[in-house]
Amino acid sequence: MRIVTTAAAQMGPIQRSDTRSVVVERMIALMDEAKAQGADFIVYPELALTTFFPRWYIEDQAEVDTWFEREMPSPETLPLFRRAREHGMAMSFGYAELTPEGQHFNTSIIVDKHGAIIGKYRKIHLPGHSEYDPERTHQHLEKRYFLPGDLGFPVWRTMGGLFGMCVCNDRRWPETYRVMGLQGVEMVALGYNTPSINSQNGAEGPEQRLFHNRLSVQAGAYQNATWVVAVAKAGVEDGHPLIGGSLIVDPNGVIVAECRTEEDELLVHPCDLDDTVFGKTTIFDFVRHRRVEHYGLITSQTGVVLPPE
Amino acid sequence: MRIVTTAAAQMGPIQRSDTRSVVVERMIALMDEAKAQGADFIVYPELALTTFFPRWYIEDQAEVDTWFEREMPSPETLPLFRRAREHGMAMSFGYAELTPEGQHFNTSIIVDKHGAIIGKYRKIHLPGHSEYDPERTHQHLEKRYFLPGDLGFPVWRTMGGLFGMCVCNDRRWPETYRVMGLQGVEMVALGYNTPSINSQNGAEGPEQRLFHNRLSVQAGAYQNATWVVAVAKAGVEDGHPLIGGSLIVDPNGVIVAECRTEEDELLVHPCDLDDTVFGKTTIFDFVRHRRVEHYGLITSQTGVVLPPE
Repeated sequence: MRIVTTAAAQMGPIQRSDTRSVVVERMIALMDEAKAQGADFIVYPELALTTFFPRWYIEDQAEVDTWFEREMPSPETLPLFRRAREHGMAMSFGYAELTPEGQHFNTSIIVDKHGAIIGKYRKIHLPGHSEYDPERTHQHLEKRYFLPGDLGFPVWRTMGGLFGMCVCNDRRWPETYRVMGLQGVEMVALGYNTPSINSQNGAEGPEQRLFHNRLSVQAGAYQNATWVVAVAKAGVEDGHPLIGGSLIVDPNGVIVAECRTEEDELLVHPCDLDDTVFGKTTIFDFVRHRRVEHYGLITSQTGVVLPPE
Repeated sequence: MRIVTTAAAQMGPIQRSDTRSVVVERMIALMDEAKAQGADFIVYPELALTTFFPRWYIEDQAEVDTWFEREMPSPETLPLFRRAREHGMAMSFGYAELTPEGQHFNTSIIVDKHGAIIGKYRKIHLPGHSEYDPERTHQHLEKRYFLPGDLGFPVWRTMGGLFGMCVCNDRRWPETYRVMGLQGVEMVALGYNTPSINSQNGAEGPEQRLFHNRLSVQAGAYQNATWVVAVAKAGVEDGHPLIGGSLIVDPNGVIVAECRTEEDELLVHPCDLDDTVFGKTTIFDFVRHRRVEHYGLITSQTGVVLPPE
C-alpha cells in the first residue's frame, strides 16, 4: 500500500473585485480542514487566485496583466506556501503565469511538502477563441490571453509515486492522459473552470456539462489505470455560473468522492497508488497490447482529413 | 438531416455445437424484425457465427481452423447476404477469417445495401494471452489464435456518411476512435464478446464489466463526436457467461438505447449523422485545438517508460 490521502479543494466563486489575499485566506482555511482530515496532498482549481477572467474581453494589455502572477510564490501567495510547509502537505493549484520574457500561460504547479515547486505544467488545450465573438452568450477568450503550453505533459516522482497535471479542457482530450500514462502516471491533478452553459449552445446546460466532466475524467483514469483528482472553481462569478462536481476517480474509473455544492467544499480520500498496478499489468499493459504502427495519424495530422470521395 | 435508422442486433449465446446455419437463421430473424422497424443498417456482434472459441485451449490447428471462414459469403452465410439485399439493408458483422495465405484474423465487415462488401477491418487490439495460463479462471487465447489486424482503422463513405469499425477490446483504447475521428468518422460499428468475469480477478463481475463497456464507448463517441453502435454476444456460452448491454451512443456520448437481456434482442434508433456536426465544429474541432507537438510518445513508444529516478 502506498496511501496518499488526497484532498480535492473545490472553491466557490471568486468575484472580480476579490483580492488575492482574500482568496488565499479561503485556500488556507480549506488546507487547515484538509490537515484535520489527515491529508498529505491538496489540489485546488485552475486559476485559483482570481475570477475566470477569460470571460471578459479586455483590450488593454496592462489591464489583462493584472490577472497574471509575475512570481510564485508572491507576497500574496507566500502565506499559502508557509502554511503548507507547516502542515507538511504537498499541494497543486493553477494560476495565470506571466514570464520574465512576457509570455502568458495558464499554469499549474505541484509544490512538495517542503514548499519546493517540483513541477510546472502549462495548459496545452486552450479552448475558446481569440477575438470578440458577438454570437456567443459569453466570451471564452483563452486563445487570446494565453499561449499554448510549451512544457508537454511531464510526470514527476514525488510523494512516493508518479504524478502529473493537466488543466480544464485538457481533460476532454484522451491524448492528455495517454502521454502521462506512457510515463507510468499514478495520479493526475486537474483543476477546471467550466461555464455551466455552452457559450455556443444555450440548450447545453449544467447537467450535460457535469456529465461530460465525469465521462472524460473517468475514461482517462480507467484507460490509463491512474487516479484523477478533478477540482472545480464553481458557482456564480461576476454573474456567470460555473459547474462544480469536483471528483476523485480511482484507477478503475470509479468515482470515489464527488462535491455536491458550488461553494468551497473539501473531498478527502485515502488514495492507494498501488491500486494502479492491476490495470497497468493486465488489460492496460501497454507494451503487450498497444499497436503504435496503426496510430500514426494521431501525431502526423492535426485536423480531420476525409477519405477520398 | 441524414438519418440512418440503425439496428443493434444483440445475439444471445451460441453453443459450441451450434452450426453456422442455425446461427444464420437467428441473424435473419433479427434482420426481418429490424426491417419491420424501418432499419437501414444492422450491426451484429464480434465472431457472430460461432461460440467465442478463444476461451478454449486447442492444440490441434486443424480443429482451430474449423472456427474460421475461408470465404465470405460462404454457402452457410449466403442466405444472410441475400436477405439483406432483398431488404435493401446494409449490415456489419464479425467472424474469424482464414486467408488464402493461411493467416488468421478477428475480422469485421460492412456490407452495403446491394450486398457488396465495401469495408473490412481486422481487430488490432487483441486481448488475452497466447499460451495456456493455469492461473486464469478461464482462458482468453486471442493472442494465440489471431494475428493483430493489418488494415489500420479505415473509414468508408457509405449510406451517405462516414463509417468505421472496431472490435471488442479495441473499444477500450482511445487511439481506436481517434484514428477514425481524424478521418471524420460519423458512425462506428463495434461488436464484442466480453466475459462477465475478469479471468484474472474474480471480484470483477458483470456490473463493473458493463460499466467499463459503457464508459469506453461513451467517451469514444463524445471525444470524436461520432455515433457508436456497440453490439454484444451475450449470455451463457458453453457454460461461460458473457455480458450483454449492447448500446447505441450519440455524438454527445449519451446512451440513446441499451439492451436489457442476454438474449437475441434488437435496438433500433434513427441516428442523424448531422448530429455529429456541432461537436466536430466546436469543442472537438481538431484543427483548432489539437497540439500534436506534445503527443509524440503516443506513436513513438509502445510501453511505459518511467521518468528517471
